Amino acid sequence: MLQSKLFTKTRREDPKDEVAKNARLLIRAGFIHKEAAGIYSLLPLGLRTINKINQIVREEMNALGANELQMTALQNPEIWQKTDRWSGDKMDVWFKTALNGGGELGLGFTHEEAITTIASDHVNSYKDLPFSAYQIQTKFRNEARAKSGIMRGREFLMKDLYSFHTSEADLEVFYEKATQAYKNIFTRLGIGDKTFLTFATGGSFSEFSHEFQTICEVGEDTIYVDRAKGIAVNQEVYNDEVLAKLDLEKSKLEEAKAVEIGNIFKLGTRFSEPLGLTYLDEKGERQPVVMGCYGFGPSRAMGLLTEVLADDQGLVWPLSVAPFALHLISLNENEKALELYKTLTAKGIEVLLDDREASAGAKFADADLLGMPYRVIVSAKGLAENQYEIKNRATGEVKMMPTSEFVAWVDEILRP
Amino acid sequence: MLQSKLFTKTRREDPKDEVAKNARLLIRAGFIHKEAAGIYSLLPLGLRTINKINQIVREEMNALGANELQMTALQNPEIWQKTDRWSGDKMDVWFKTALNGGGELGLGFTHEEAITTIASDHVNSYKDLPFSAYQIQTKFRNEARAKSGIMRGREFLMKDLYSFHTSEADLEVFYEKATQAYKNIFTRLGIGDKTFLTFATGGSFSEFSHEFQTICEVGEDTIYVDRAKGIAVNQEVYNDEVLAKLDLEKSKLEEAKAVEIGNIFKLGTRFSEPLGLTYLDEKGERQPVVMGCYGFGPSRAMGLLTEVLADDQGLVWPLSVAPFALHLISLNENEKALELYKTLTAKGIEVLLDDREASAGAKFADADLLGMPYRVIVSAKGLAENQYEIKNRATGEVKMMPTSEFVAWVDEILRP
Repeated sequence: MLQSKLFTKTRREDPKDEVAKNARLLIRAGFIHKEAAGIYSLLPLGLRTINKINQIVREEMNALGANELQMTALQNPEIWQKTDRWSGDKMDVWFKTALNGGGELGLGFTHEEAITTIASDHVNSYKDLPFSAYQIQTKFRNEARAKSGIMRGREFLMKDLYSFHTSEADLEVFYEKATQAYKNIFTRLGIGDKTFLTFATGGSFSEFSHEFQTICEVGEDTIYVDRAKGIAVNQEVYNDEVLAKLDLEKSKLEEAKAVEIGNIFKLGTRFSEPLGLTYLDEKGERQPVVMGCYGFGPSRAMGLLTEVLADDQGLVWPLSVAPFALHLISLNENEKALELYKTLTAKGIEVLLDDREASAGAKFADADLLGMPYRVIVSAKGLAENQYEIKNRATGEVKMMPTSEFVAWVDEILRP
Repeated sequence: MLQSKLFTKTRREDPKDEVAKNARLLIRAGFIHKEAAGIYSLLPLGLRTINKINQIVREEMNALGANELQMTALQNPEIWQKTDRWSGDKMDVWFKTALNGGGELGLGFTHEEAITTIASDHVNSYKDLPFSAYQIQTKFRNEARAKSGIMRGREFLMKDLYSFHTSEADLEVFYEKATQAYKNIFTRLGIGDKTFLTFATGGSFSEFSHEFQTICEVGEDTIYVDRAKGIAVNQEVYNDEVLAKLDLEKSKLEEAKAVEIGNIFKLGTRFSEPLGLTYLDEKGERQPVVMGCYGFGPSRAMGLLTEVLADDQGLVWPLSVAPFALHLISLNENEKALELYKTLTAKGIEVLLDDREASAGAKFADADLLGMPYRVIVSAKGLAENQYEIKNRATGEVKMMPTSEFVAWVDEILRP
């Protein structure tokens, strides 16, 4: 993309009404726009980043054999009354709205009721099980306070996967595979080494739920990490009994602030029973379906990556989710730079070419703020020496590379 | 995809609570699920179709040079008060909701206010213009009645493009290009010959707006079509004065029911003035930005394609938007069929393989109902004769093809 064709501009000053680092930097860099507290539009660069995150998630979900679907934001009270989650006393995060013709609807903050009802139209026999289905969809939470930028929004993106089984044993098999899929996602997002499977409060069905917590100083949760074992315990269940059960030793645990980036639950029959999701077993007897659910927040992930990776100069994106792999900076050499841009994009490399009329200093500052993994300068001086200057945004390392070697380097490092 | 891994099932009977053909068929085929009147979830096959439609739209928008972004459903009253569109008296389609901390939010039914506000953060000089930006995003309308299936939903998908200019003349240039992009979209959707640029009621700025109306017997609009000129007039502006202005002759016009599938408007400064979207011109004077907007409904398009193309046996998808190009039917030949499936998918062909335990009759009926463009039968009888049976869903034409010629046929007809 040509930067001259990108309508968003950067700004030097932090927005006055934001305290969270993620919101301040993402707004300055033109990735997001604040509509109201906890409500952010995704501008072109932000949308590209989210799409990259979504694609990683989608690939891992598809590898599990899950079917992608898209449920609605507007929720029918009927199904939520059956599970006793419609009342505002039970669930204080509802946004509700009135229908012109009479009646009420809610804005979904999760979709167990909806997916269970859908499944009941399509499951009859044990032969229809197991299966799993997911969506990447907008959710709403009526948060009283919303000061964490896109880390805790009133409107946010969620990937929610649901699985359906004939037995707890079969759920267990899938649950393990889903756990591995989550680990793959965090590795691909570049936060694998900071993210721990964390034991947390269980639901109605199982003793523990499992969170994926990423160590981050602005996290709302406190966890106790056993780095050697690669697991953690949430403060809410941190006691001697639980540690004994998990075979963990207090002396080996490290306390840390963390952000919950995923959460997986064994639901059992909590939703299938009230909503009548049953199957005929091999003896012809009706049984409730056993379910699991698996959440992940793409918009929270974008905020988290900002919190843990960005530095004083601005955003720092891993190659896997960067809006563009390469930020090509033309210093009054638009013709030569455009030629290189065309060569690279023809190879499928995603390049942002700064072809604007601006000073070198302004372009460098913007490149640091936007945070593409590699900045490449095309200048008269470099061209005279047949060299490009390449800067690695994350490490700050700068090197000169002969133009003759550049395309081979791109093929090795950046080729998708 | 293996049909045995698709969780949705077809049903023989129409749902009792639907009158619209599109909803009846799409529900029977397992493409959508009704959550409430006018509110439908997209099941896996429906989502695949919508994604195909969206991709066509995205390619045409990107070719215009438009930047893709994603605005929010939740809308801040402040900006709508400035344009006098917050009050329910002015706009009866609002869904509004209360914030737990106090205050109200609305669910966006359009995004002129939002995009104009965003643009005002990024536009300063005439050098920042023109540009255009679009999203494919969920909108909400508090419809009193919702009986047209996914053709008029309370929650639906919209592609909304907005353009920003220094002058009406510059808007006019873009408006013409956008009109052509719309024509490209309808051609690619397979309804180019049924869709007409239609003169309709103007807004505050221009004498006419332009709708794209597709002839369809269940359409809510009546239009008068001049087929030779390829344009039409909406009944709402159909009078002698308008016909004279458009150089149309009553005797050459054909009355038809039609569905509005797109609508493009010159907005002028209707939104930029109240929301303070201005630019400094070359003389250093502040001027309001001149805007255009361009809407298209992907979910309505899916309904419309069903209304105009489906037959008594079920859905009929054009290759451009079919969930899968080819429906491979294994008649007790799963091993051979799977081999062929792998060959085809390795070529990038999207194939649905019916590997279920079911009768030939049930499989054929399902294939007709699901509506993939080509059905290919792999049977013992055919294999003995080294032949596949291929059926064209739209024409009903059935032919036998030597297995040796099949891959070449696929390369010619189906290769993306």
